[in-house]
Amino acid sequence: MISSPANEKVKHVAALNKKASLREEEGLFVAEGVRLFEEIPLSDIKEAYYTQEGLAELEKRGHSDISLLIRDGRAQEVSGPVLEKMSDVVTPQGVLAVVKRRKHEWDELLPEGKAPLLIMLEDIQDPGNLGTVLRSAEAAGADGVILGGMTADIYNPKVVRSTMGAIFRLPFMRLNDLSFCFDILRKRGVKIHAAAMEGAEAFSSRDYSQGTAFIIGNEGKGLKKETIDGADDTVYIPMAGKTESLNASVSAALLLYEAARQRGYK
Amino acid sequence: MISSPANEKVKHVAALNKKASLREEEGLFVAEGVRLFEEIPLSDIKEAYYTQEGLAELEKRGHSDISLLIRDGRAQEVSGPVLEKMSDVVTPQGVLAVVKRRKHEWDELLPEGKAPLLIMLEDIQDPGNLGTVLRSAEAAGADGVILGGMTADIYNPKVVRSTMGAIFRLPFMRLNDLSFCFDILRKRGVKIHAAAMEGAEAFSSRDYSQGTAFIIGNEGKGLKKETIDGADDTVYIPMAGKTESLNASVSAALLLYEAARQRGYK
Repeated sequence: MISSPANEKVKHVAALNKKASLREEEGLFVAEGVRLFEEIPLSDIKEAYYTQEGLAELEKRGHSDISLLIRDGRAQEVSGPVLEKMSDVVTPQGVLAVVKRRKHEWDELLPEGKAPLLIMLEDIQDPGNLGTVLRSAEAAGADGVILGGMTADIYNPKVVRSTMGAIFRLPFMRLNDLSFCFDILRKRGVKIHAAAMEGAEAFSSRDYSQGTAFIIGNEGKGLKKETIDGADDTVYIPMAGKTESLNASVSAALLLYEAARQRGYK
Repeated sequence: MISSPANEKVKHVAALNKKASLREEEGLFVAEGVRLFEEIPLSDIKEAYYTQEGLAELEKRGHSDISLLIRDGRAQEVSGPVLEKMSDVVTPQGVLAVVKRRKHEWDELLPEGKAPLLIMLEDIQDPGNLGTVLRSAEAAGADGVILGGMTADIYNPKVVRSTMGAIFRLPFMRLNDLSFCFDILRKRGVKIHAAAMEGAEAFSSRDYSQGTAFIIGNEGKGLKKETIDGADDTVYIPMAGKTESLNASVSAALLLYEAARQRGYK
């Protein structure tokens, strides 16, 4: 059992939680909490750390992977204070894993034999919003998420937690400029709808039964003019009252679920 | 100008930001930030505090109320460090107000001559979720929000900020038990739809053109069985993939916007 907070592994996990540059350099990230741990594909786990309480909770919930990870030497017991040192949250749940990043391919985001449904994000800065978009996108049956510009690091621990596991199931791709992929999408018959404050038509009046991608912009500023100009269409979400905008993750969910509704929630 | 962080007024505002019990006892709350400040009805402002930078920003944006508040003695200049002491955020925007609470009446939540649209929340604990529900509810044309059980304090500074001003425009009501109002709603022709993990029918297959109230439950546990049993109907939001649930504010927005869509966004 690791009981010293000065242990090198402990310091390494704490640093992975804090530093985006280290996560990038090493191709790793941290996922913590009992329910999230259960969602990690076994082969993606590099290391795992648990307290006695965490182990008991996993066993109670019938999670069998943990004993396998203990046997093959990937999982190690740590003391409560050591887990607190590693953790990104105030009250850790007794288990965390260092996870290898996956590199997703366009074939995953644009699967053969179906009309793709994608959500693209430009400069979404709030980690909670980003994680919630992934969670809603999976629920709405989207095929993937494209992260553009200054969008928050998807491997930020708060993002990872707020995806509720969708980060392990939904393919995603990062691009410096979203417009880099517009031609790739169009070749696959995907129509690109920019969500703007004001646009030609209310979002629910469009047909999303064919390949569809929505673009959502920054929380305060919305989409860049070049992005709107480069898209195939502009839609808006009607708003009553004096509201100036909706939360970015709410907008994403409304658009994706309208497509899901039109497609009969298949 | 107040330049001492030890000033009694400064300590009072800081305490109002921190303590729900003090906010309740005094019938006050704090709203801060330039854009939020502009949304406060002038007569609701008890006191206001601004830095030179905050005042310049308000004047640049053409906000005329601030000079009126200075003239009638309600607004006072403070130093940057003093505003930081009062503020709930790391980087204050140069203006905050102590605001008198309003008591809303049922007539406001159930206006005459239209089919009411309401959202009811049971035990919603995340302040960001609660504020975002108010913001989306106003945008979807809802008439009010009913806060039940252990739902977070609507006057928590993080809730106030995330409403983006909707707290000053949308009527709301707090009840220990949501079922206390079921009969009041039914007498006004409002049908109560509980949102549950699984229900008889997908939410978009129901008719919401008549009086409609949705109930959303706790982030982790969903709605209590008694609440579901007491409602008139149960609806669910279809989910693809392995997602177990949606974010509470996302669920609220999807339900309210489906009603808005059916009503032609009037």
